[in-house]
Amino acid sequence: MVQQTLEVVKATELKEKPDPATLKFGRQFSDHMFMMDYSAVDGWHQPRVVPYQPLELDPSAMVFHYGQSVFEGLKAYRSADGNILLFRPEENFRRLNESCDRLCIPQVNEEAMLEYLKELVKLDKDWVPSEVGTSLYIRPFIISTEPTLDVSPARAYTLMIILSPVGSFYKGGIDPVGIFVEDEYTRSAPGGTGYAKTAGNYSGAYKAQERASTHGKAQVLWLDGVEKKYIEEVGSMNVFFKINGEIHTPALSGSILDGITRKSVIELLESNGMNVRQRQISMDELIAANEAGSLQEVFGTGTAAVISPVGRLEYKGQDYVINGSEMGETARWLHETLVGIQTGEQEDPFGWTIVLET
Amino acid sequence: MVQQTLEVVKATELKEKPDPATLKFGRQFSDHMFMMDYSAVDGWHQPRVVPYQPLELDPSAMVFHYGQSVFEGLKAYRSADGNILLFRPEENFRRLNESCDRLCIPQVNEEAMLEYLKELVKLDKDWVPSEVGTSLYIRPFIISTEPTLDVSPARAYTLMIILSPVGSFYKGGIDPVGIFVEDEYTRSAPGGTGYAKTAGNYSGAYKAQERASTHGKAQVLWLDGVEKKYIEEVGSMNVFFKINGEIHTPALSGSILDGITRKSVIELLESNGMNVRQRQISMDELIAANEAGSLQEVFGTGTAAVISPVGRLEYKGQDYVINGSEMGETARWLHETLVGIQTGEQEDPFGWTIVLET
Repeated sequence: MVQQTLEVVKATELKEKPDPATLKFGRQFSDHMFMMDYSAVDGWHQPRVVPYQPLELDPSAMVFHYGQSVFEGLKAYRSADGNILLFRPEENFRRLNESCDRLCIPQVNEEAMLEYLKELVKLDKDWVPSEVGTSLYIRPFIISTEPTLDVSPARAYTLMIILSPVGSFYKGGIDPVGIFVEDEYTRSAPGGTGYAKTAGNYSGAYKAQERASTHGKAQVLWLDGVEKKYIEEVGSMNVFFKINGEIHTPALSGSILDGITRKSVIELLESNGMNVRQRQISMDELIAANEAGSLQEVFGTGTAAVISPVGRLEYKGQDYVINGSEMGETARWLHETLVGIQTGEQEDPFGWTIVLET
Repeated sequence: MVQQTLEVVKATELKEKPDPATLKFGRQFSDHMFMMDYSAVDGWHQPRVVPYQPLELDPSAMVFHYGQSVFEGLKAYRSADGNILLFRPEENFRRLNESCDRLCIPQVNEEAMLEYLKELVKLDKDWVPSEVGTSLYIRPFIISTEPTLDVSPARAYTLMIILSPVGSFYKGGIDPVGIFVEDEYTRSAPGGTGYAKTAGNYSGAYKAQERASTHGKAQVLWLDGVEKKYIEEVGSMNVFFKINGEIHTPALSGSILDGITRKSVIELLESNGMNVRQRQISMDELIAANEAGSLQEVFGTGTAAVISPVGRLEYKGQDYVINGSEMGETARWLHETLVGIQTGEQEDPFGWTIVLET
């Protein structure tokens, strides 16, 4: 697959930028978007940047009926000196292709996608906010568009990238959240789609999220789909535990997401001499560690929150408090370091950030 | 919820009807479609029949990203005397609401939906083909349309019904199919979305379907997501076994579809004095029964094929032939009886069919 020439059609009128102080997640979009189509004859073709606009699809378009849809999420950050930084974007396109494989969607040229993404963000560079905690959220996604009710992989797709300025995840400072350990609903089982960023994984989780909310908890802690015994993820984040000074996280089993923040956290800890054990972790072990006083920290990792400390968890009708419901030192250090690298405030010894030349 | 007045906007130009001899499944659509919208303020509102036309959606419409989407499938049949018959359509709207509940989509008024459906089919009655084996496939579906990347149940939806004339499933007579027993990929696990007709269940199954094809098999036989031991479904059909003269089918466990053809088959057999055992059935038991010569028939049930006999199955690298790869007498009787009732050729003692007054 050779990189194809990017066609750019600029918007004739630019939208008013939203007030950075009132930004919500994923509700406002920039002036342009990227599109590329797939057909069986031409493969992925006609990469283009066009004004942000509605999509027109036949009511029989397969995505509506059979959910062949994958996506990614990453952010562009404004550094103090006015540069725009991307954080490990090549990892997103690598994972997009893994999701494509699981959903029988034709894979994309990762290098070309990165170039297209850069061009799009450069064109809409004024949409990258500069206030502390803000960023430009980037959403690449692919949907099946073939107009047929046949239950089989589509022969036509559209890939798009849309951009949305987002506010700080932690408006009033970082407050540890409560999580509800879900032992009835299942997010994914071995052999399922759990490791893929595909649409159905998310809406299938809403019912459990509603249940967590009725228990006054912000997020669901998912257990494995087979024994309902081992920890998988928190909401749509990966999860880490500090037990007796050592960091533990569920191993990539095929049913959890291969998070880029997860991977960065592991690399960051290991490069600072800390051992991270990726393994099966049972709820029983966790509760025992908490009761013995050796469970020091619990935190989620993801693109939206970066690090999200957990202060309480409810399991089988009982509430457990973690670390006095305070953010732990490891979570705080990870958050500061990662955000520091992402925004260019700290040195990036890993080569994780890409500076856009605007 | 009160039934609201149906607005009808007729197409000014009617499309040419396709040749009934070359009809494929779900590729051509009738002149009109039904639409209804949901908003948090108005609930389900503005039911309308409009000319079949493309949908316009924001690229951030939630269905593309998080897959909140449910659907149904049923058929309208043309009887020999020219009437149009619907088969148990109220069961489809009952199940649609069950799917809605699992996906956190607001439920619909089932009685009103049935009336709207009747009006739509009456208007497009010339699209119900009359050749043997043909029918008008009816696809109700709901998609989330709210333009936001927030991971939570949407506050805006569209419900649509589209109509597609379909040819005979068995063009060259009924030929038993081969199935591949999938012991790696998982369709659904307890606590998942398996019983719901939601988009993600279908695309998540494509990978296994591809694997079955490479083994020369037409369909996947799904095993349970926990032990990979118990039989669930065949492709997107329910499955029945005749062992020693008795009929067995997997019990509704939450991870398989509550099929309307399945239910009709059970009621038909029981009303004819046959016992149907709904229970857990292991592959080991099935293979042992086949080797002992007591496995007499295997067949799938679903709206598309009605009854689909299975002639061979491949399990852990070995091929097993069922009933000499011939269609069994029970499958044949069920197929003739069900199709007879659906098309009005046979008496309908169950009150399953609704005759449309056109």
